[in-house]
Amino acid sequence: MICNEKMYALGAKRSVIRELFEYGKKRKAEVGEDKVYDFSLGNPSVPPPKEVKEALLRLLDTPNETALHGYTSAQGDKGVRETIAKNYKEKYGFAFDPDLMYMTCGAAASLAISLNAVIKDEKDEVLTFAPFFPEYRVFTEKAGAKLVAVSPAEGLDIDVEAFAAAINAHTRAVILNSPNNPSGVVYSEEKIKAVAEVLKAASAKYGAPIYLISDEPYRELIFDGKKAPSLPLYYKDVIVCYSYSKALSLPGERIGYIAVSPQATDAEALYLAVCGAGRALGYVCAPSLFQLLVKECDAYTGDINAYKENRDLLYGALTEYGFTCAYPSGAFYLFVQSPTGDASALSEAAKEEDVLVVPSDSFGCAGYVRIAYCVSRDLIERSLPAFRRIAEKFGLRK
Amino acid sequence: MICNEKMYALGAKRSVIRELFEYGKKRKAEVGEDKVYDFSLGNPSVPPPKEVKEALLRLLDTPNETALHGYTSAQGDKGVRETIAKNYKEKYGFAFDPDLMYMTCGAAASLAISLNAVIKDEKDEVLTFAPFFPEYRVFTEKAGAKLVAVSPAEGLDIDVEAFAAAINAHTRAVILNSPNNPSGVVYSEEKIKAVAEVLKAASAKYGAPIYLISDEPYRELIFDGKKAPSLPLYYKDVIVCYSYSKALSLPGERIGYIAVSPQATDAEALYLAVCGAGRALGYVCAPSLFQLLVKECDAYTGDINAYKENRDLLYGALTEYGFTCAYPSGAFYLFVQSPTGDASALSEAAKEEDVLVVPSDSFGCAGYVRIAYCVSRDLIERSLPAFRRIAEKFGLRK
Repeated sequence: MICNEKMYALGAKRSVIRELFEYGKKRKAEVGEDKVYDFSLGNPSVPPPKEVKEALLRLLDTPNETALHGYTSAQGDKGVRETIAKNYKEKYGFAFDPDLMYMTCGAAASLAISLNAVIKDEKDEVLTFAPFFPEYRVFTEKAGAKLVAVSPAEGLDIDVEAFAAAINAHTRAVILNSPNNPSGVVYSEEKIKAVAEVLKAASAKYGAPIYLISDEPYRELIFDGKKAPSLPLYYKDVIVCYSYSKALSLPGERIGYIAVSPQATDAEALYLAVCGAGRALGYVCAPSLFQLLVKECDAYTGDINAYKENRDLLYGALTEYGFTCAYPSGAFYLFVQSPTGDASALSEAAKEEDVLVVPSDSFGCAGYVRIAYCVSRDLIERSLPAFRRIAEKFGLRK
Repeated sequence: MICNEKMYALGAKRSVIRELFEYGKKRKAEVGEDKVYDFSLGNPSVPPPKEVKEALLRLLDTPNETALHGYTSAQGDKGVRETIAKNYKEKYGFAFDPDLMYMTCGAAASLAISLNAVIKDEKDEVLTFAPFFPEYRVFTEKAGAKLVAVSPAEGLDIDVEAFAAAINAHTRAVILNSPNNPSGVVYSEEKIKAVAEVLKAASAKYGAPIYLISDEPYRELIFDGKKAPSLPLYYKDVIVCYSYSKALSLPGERIGYIAVSPQATDAEALYLAVCGAGRALGYVCAPSLFQLLVKECDAYTGDINAYKENRDLLYGALTEYGFTCAYPSGAFYLFVQSPTGDASALSEAAKEEDVLVVPSDSFGCAGYVRIAYCVSRDLIERSLPAFRRIAEKFGLRK
């Protein structure tokens, strides 16, 4: 091989999601755009809140374009970080220190940078809770450690006992993602507390902090009056990784942040490691125009209610047809059990009906498919007869 | 240490350039904004061409904001890549393949990704020509290899013999930067041909391609009727790393690209390794709005003539005062010899006159200071008496 084999393998092996997306494009060309029900991609379907365009136009109307598009400090514009910290305090009741916040090119960058900052040794392990976003493995391995998945309890919830049993002297960090991609499950405050207790005991036992990396791009996409608990309220060694991709419907613009809890062990050293990892991975600063946009729009979200209505419609129909699915109170995903226990049996049966859903194997949880319902309501309505036929095929409907 | 020590060290050790910039801010507060002559930062001083704002307003005026700000493919929007390839062919006479191009978050990302794609082994070495941009060492070491600098010939030009002598069986890649940061020197076509010949012979001798990574963010900032030669015309195993930071005065927006030469050995595998490295480092896609902006503005530049006039004024004055400096035909830097041979002697003497220039040690070339003349003409004019006094201090003026 003329180049780095691991990087080649990552580039050559398209993700299942992208494979399906490409198939969908081809299939739409064959049978017509409106005949294919593509639930493969987690691309927000609601437009950004109107404040986004208003703020962008206001920002562009500056006499000083050189400053508008110029480098910010590597950590990001200080005023932006101050605004985010202030809003977060009001909404979640925890005070971040703007000087321990680092603006990033989105959630993937936040995670890759955080993992490179904390992983020290090739024996290091990073735990996460299945089902989980497949790129966690990619980022963890590139940072030089091993990803270990903890199988879920009933309802795709956190299995605290299994979690405690999975921790050992090599556990450096835990990635927790709530609302969860791919299940849409929101972990309860009780579970968060239990996770925190396990981590406190394990950090004490092994004599070193185990970092809780909170991947929360779906934090604002939450229904049923629930609220995502702010993890630094429950545990001190927390690194929050956020992205505006979903809440502001700006996934292509790559804007997010890392916030090191001011209560973390030796927080300043940890923050400097974050800055160093950002530098070493080639991140000079987060995009400047969108940093300033975030300052204006941090408190807004797109029309979350549209997702809730999609959830209600699709969850209601699928469970009526006989499918089993953990109750999703957030994000924009349903994670549906395959009636045979085999993920591809269900995804292939769906494909025959031109319904595109992602088999679950890469999410570390066999026997499910992920349905991304960030699509138009009309598409969901038109897809329902196909879902009914799929249920009938498996003998689910009475 | 509770975190990764190398990342901590990179975060904790501010670059000399940033130290100086912070000092300048403090000093300006003390003695007044107009009394400090800050030549420390390579931040473009001319505004973006007017077409940038026009195009941004046009792009924002879309009914489909979801698509405007949505994910592009990981490689970047295909239409954007096609436009860049077409313009490059017209201007530089070499045809890139849009399917071997990868949009990035700027030059640092382009370099970090390319190095991670080609470096295979911890014994690998990456060569570069001194003086060089200090982050080359950071990116190379993070990618797992060692950076080796080749000392320059007279006039800060490439020393071809020293270059040939520095290559060995572990040489995986060579980074070439023309116009050069920090010297402003533009390497001649003859030197490029000589470098290519050395690389051809060495690739044949060691039985593996040695990649020529062309870091060319200053490609369009070139004066005196010169033109930067397109490296893929002279050597096949070329990876072009570009950024719009300087040409379009958009350094904070983080937009650039990698182009793998279609003539490179096993070009598709190399390209897939680039895609894999981008993925593993957390780059999902380059910022979408600025990808589309590039499609509209790839052929434009800011007012390069303003830089040329600054160059003429400052180069003329400094050489008249007795300073020695390689002739800079590009970028916006002068690299001035310290009369004592000691970089900090000159930078400290300048500091006493409130002239901020960067000592050269981190650029791998002792005994110089870098003057970034991407500042207003007025600032340069006002700084000249101070430069004259510095020359007198060293006994340079007759």
